[in-house]
Amino acid sequence: MTVVLYDNPVSGNCYKVRLLLSLLGIDFRRVEMSVVDRSGREDVLGGVSPSLNVPAVILEDGRPLGESNAILWHFAEGTDYLPADRYRRSQVLQWMFFEQYKHEPAIAVLRFWLAIAELDKDEREIEERRAAGYAALDAMEQRLSIEPYLVGEELTIADISLFAYTHVAGEAGFELDRYPGIEAWLARVSAIPGFVPISN
Amino acid sequence: MTVVLYDNPVSGNCYKVRLLLSLLGIDFRRVEMSVVDRSGREDVLGGVSPSLNVPAVILEDGRPLGESNAILWHFAEGTDYLPADRYRRSQVLQWMFFEQYKHEPAIAVLRFWLAIAELDKDEREIEERRAAGYAALDAMEQRLSIEPYLVGEELTIADISLFAYTHVAGEAGFELDRYPGIEAWLARVSAIPGFVPISN
Repeated sequence: MTVVLYDNPVSGNCYKVRLLLSLLGIDFRRVEMSVVDRSGREDVLGGVSPSLNVPAVILEDGRPLGESNAILWHFAEGTDYLPADRYRRSQVLQWMFFEQYKHEPAIAVLRFWLAIAELDKDEREIEERRAAGYAALDAMEQRLSIEPYLVGEELTIADISLFAYTHVAGEAGFELDRYPGIEAWLARVSAIPGFVPISN
Repeated sequence: MTVVLYDNPVSGNCYKVRLLLSLLGIDFRRVEMSVVDRSGREDVLGGVSPSLNVPAVILEDGRPLGESNAILWHFAEGTDYLPADRYRRSQVLQWMFFEQYKHEPAIAVLRFWLAIAELDKDEREIEERRAAGYAALDAMEQRLSIEPYLVGEELTIADISLFAYTHVAGEAGFELDRYPGIEAWLARVSAIPGFVPISN
């Protein structure tokens, strides 16, 4: 059975999964869901993902899985995108939990408010997310100013996870040219064989 | 070398790690950090965890690791608290990412605002977190009303992760008696041999 991806074309969380599946050469069928109108989510995703968020997938064997970074881990296991070494695997998870707790709620949410749903939020809320987003970028820069990838010497799913919303952070008004390490890393990830853009 | 845990006694994220290490019989030394006054975090945790959050650990071999759920995964690997089956492992991660994205930012943050730091937040912000918290509890109840644990038939680190802030959700004003499945599961987790309370 072909993998089914509950997907949205502008969601960075969904893009992570499309990028990894493309790199791995795994076929998938996309079912598009709105990220602005969430009505009907329960009907479609009720038995698929506890959060009712996209992305969610139906695996080749018909079993469901939710949460973008759990999906990345599932497909990356046993491939070059997830190291075998125990400590490196833990570091991959460290960066992916950092992504969902510190990076996505700041940068992705601000992009959603300002560039996608165009919601009317008050200035204080915007500034809180702005500061949190820059703190997340600062933490990435510390690592990427001295190493080519987030964990070890090779690209892992930690990079795929954090690439997704970092490379579109400009849409939320973040100035990436403050971060030479991040900019070089973005170029490095975009150049890997099999790379596909978010708009694909 | 003894594991060092950068810790806070009221943080559920820190408690997750203390609970698992206690269950596994792994000795650790606690270094207490404030969760209200974050000044000095960079000096202590700068090279330890990208997020500068607690918990963070220094492993037996001197290497650092951050993010509560990554730390759980690291220590649980190869033990009964993390299944060997690939799909179940992915489900454990699904629930742990759900915890950090949907559950913790609602329930733990509301507990922090209302019961720990006693911050002055406006009613709309409180009600947003309240609704998000109940949605997270609804998702847990769907599973726990029909199964004893979140993944499979045995307790895993997904349960430890979600137990931490669920069992103190009452401190944030959540009414857990709406959820018989969750209440039975809380009792089940509290009864496992080696269990330690958050106040330990």
